Amino acid sequence: MNYIEQLRQKNPLVHNITNIVVANYVANGLLSIGASPLMSNAIEEMDELESICQALVINIGTLTSEQVKAMIEAGKSANKYNIPVVLDPVGVGATTFRQKTVQKLLNEIKFTAIRGNAGEIAHLAGVVWNAKGVDAGSGSGDLEEIVKTVAQKYDCIVALSGKIDYISDGQKIAKIDNGTPLFPKITGSGCLLSAVIGAFLSLDDDNLTLCVNACTSYAIAGQKAGEKLKDYETGQFYVSLLDNLALIDDEIVRKYAKVSYE
Amino acid sequence: MNYIEQLRQKNPLVHNITNIVVANYVANGLLSIGASPLMSNAIEEMDELESICQALVINIGTLTSEQVKAMIEAGKSANKYNIPVVLDPVGVGATTFRQKTVQKLLNEIKFTAIRGNAGEIAHLAGVVWNAKGVDAGSGSGDLEEIVKTVAQKYDCIVALSGKIDYISDGQKIAKIDNGTPLFPKITGSGCLLSAVIGAFLSLDDDNLTLCVNACTSYAIAGQKAGEKLKDYETGQFYVSLLDNLALIDDEIVRKYAKVSYE
Amino acid sequence: MNYIEQLRQKNPLVHNITNIVVANYVANGLLSIGASPLMSNAIEEMDELESICQALVINIGTLTSEQVKAMIEAGKSANKYNIPVVLDPVGVGATTFRQKTVQKLLNEIKFTAIRGNAGEIAHLAGVVWNAKGVDAGSGSGDLEEIVKTVAQKYDCIVALSGKIDYISDGQKIAKIDNGTPLFPKITGSGCLLSAVIGAFLSLDDDNLTLCVNACTSYAIAGQKAGEKLKDYETGQFYVSLLDNLALIDDEIVRKYAKVSYE
Repeated sequence: MNYIEQLRQKNPLVHNITNIVVANYVANGLLSIGASPLMSNAIEEMDELESICQALVINIGTLTSEQVKAMIEAGKSANKYNIPVVLDPVGVGATTFRQKTVQKLLNEIKFTAIRGNAGEIAHLAGVVWNAKGVDAGSGSGDLEEIVKTVAQKYDCIVALSGKIDYISDGQKIAKIDNGTPLFPKITGSGCLLSAVIGAFLSLDDDNLTLCVNACTSYAIAGQKAGEKLKDYETGQFYVSLLDNLALIDDEIVRKYAKVSYE
Repeated sequence: MNYIEQLRQKNPLVHNITNIVVANYVANGLLSIGASPLMSNAIEEMDELESICQALVINIGTLTSEQVKAMIEAGKSANKYNIPVVLDPVGVGATTFRQKTVQKLLNEIKFTAIRGNAGEIAHLAGVVWNAKGVDAGSGSGDLEEIVKTVAQKYDCIVALSGKIDYISDGQKIAKIDNGTPLFPKITGSGCLLSAVIGAFLSLDDDNLTLCVNACTSYAIAGQKAGEKLKDYETGQFYVSLLDNLALIDDEIVRKYAKVSYE
Repeated sequence: MNYIEQLRQKNPLVHNITNIVVANYVANGLLSIGASPLMSNAIEEMDELESICQALVINIGTLTSEQVKAMIEAGKSANKYNIPVVLDPVGVGATTFRQKTVQKLLNEIKFTAIRGNAGEIAHLAGVVWNAKGVDAGSGSGDLEEIVKTVAQKYDCIVALSGKIDYISDGQKIAKIDNGTPLFPKITGSGCLLSAVIGAFLSLDDDNLTLCVNACTSYAIAGQKAGEKLKDYETGQFYVSLLDNLALIDDEIVRKYAKVSYE
């Protein structure tokens, strides 16, 4: 249960194929928690990068057709080199292009974990949801059922982020009641969590436990960042989340964690 | 006159085709003021995105030829679905590529509003101006005349940002004397204003009033962000502007607004 | 020795062909120190941009094949117009694509300066180094020898950034003992320094002195930003570095500078 210490010791090199909105914040967040970020979308170097990296994180936030080719190449190489691969299906329900891309990725790559908000994970479960662009929107499905269904369908860990986080391997379900209402008020808080999950998954093979610990640690960093801020201090939260990702350690996480399994 | 309240109630989905420099800051700024940002340059999803968004903002800051095709497609779709379209002609006078792109956009898309600095709007008016790259530079034209000319030429609202903001529909001219000298010391303060104008324009059809209120609210957020900062605290201003976009409300705007019409 | 004052007077227009991770931070950092940033990767406007800019900075952080074409075009134009060109060979040792690109750039463009971390400069010197992705990694080469070798090989100024900065023109070597351990904890601190070097090189033709002063000023801005922060306050450092780039002046730099020549 000393995952953060392990992560800082290992300092895993995490390759992110990500979007132009959050590339900077994800890189800074990975540095803060103790990983080594590498951002690249160039198909020319995908195979070589996967051969030296300890995790791959694929984020479809601002897709281009060129980028999709690089994602497929990188994902296949990551599978070949047996490193964990995380999918963040940003706004998957919003357009046909995103839906087809995510289907293609899920068909051709074996993912270790998928992380999204309720709207995104509900879409993957085939549940009707009133998502709003890349935001979660609102819906009335059974989130526990949804996360379990998607985990079984794609045989991987699925993490659904929101006020409560739900994480499942298709059998067990973990619920995390940490975090802050400031998370959805900044862009990229979900994208960064996906990258942090990638970093944790590089530590060993207990993927459910690692994913739960990644989400718990991240939620607690956010909670601590938010606890001294007013609800409108979104700019300060953006900065303070980075500080707190660097500040948290396993002891703090143990103290604050509100995790239950079903 | 409760536009900010309306905006937060509506939480409009604003599609931005924007540049790699400010994509993150524009997304965070839109979230702060109460809109829902969506960034995409993929031609494959332009039509579908305009069908679900409440405004489109086109920013030419870091153009590529692929992006220009997506802008045309998105703009035509936005016109078809009757949602407001804002143009930010970043550094239009700097190169032939930018000039030709802006001409093409203005020929093929009906814009609701154009927002730029003095150098950019002067260029659109055909007035010689000593612009400096993407910065306003210096010139000696009559800004009221320039903004009115461009508004008439393209039959839309034109907002010229600077120490004083000038906004015209081709008949009336509004002058806003709010803001802070820190605005030009951070990158993207103009780009974010263009996106905020897009969000306001989604509220109703009184485009001049909406644009004046968008510019006034934004200038006052900046003013409040700047009033406790020293002139060199540009990093803190970058953060504090986000906080103040979330903090301002219609009452604050009414109290601070220095708007006059001619 | 009033380079910062000169820089703020001149307010040089610095063209950056850079990556999606740091484009925003580099633009804000250049604004803070007193330069005027312009980011563009569009081959259509490279020649025209070099004709109006005072420096060009080429950064290979997130390469695409299209971007490489633009870099070559821009570099040749910069050479034609006789403006300084800086290369930041981000993660050059990590992949064949980066190595080939850097070789191509070095073959076709005359660079005024190259700036990188120990892993990157060691790679250019042909010295085996245990670099880690885009991070410096660790190695045991003689850094003074390495920096001198690369400077001679490419007949330009070479700056190697780290705990101590080494700068050489192939004859003399300057060592700078300023800075803060927080620098490697944020993304883009090296990329921004490369851009600041570009801005300084626009001032006159004493390239070694200018490069040493750029690195010293930047290191001192970081040192002052870091001196009130705890080692985990990486988010606050990211913000405070911008403030301190705006705050420093020639007097502060003279007071804090720890530079020695060999």
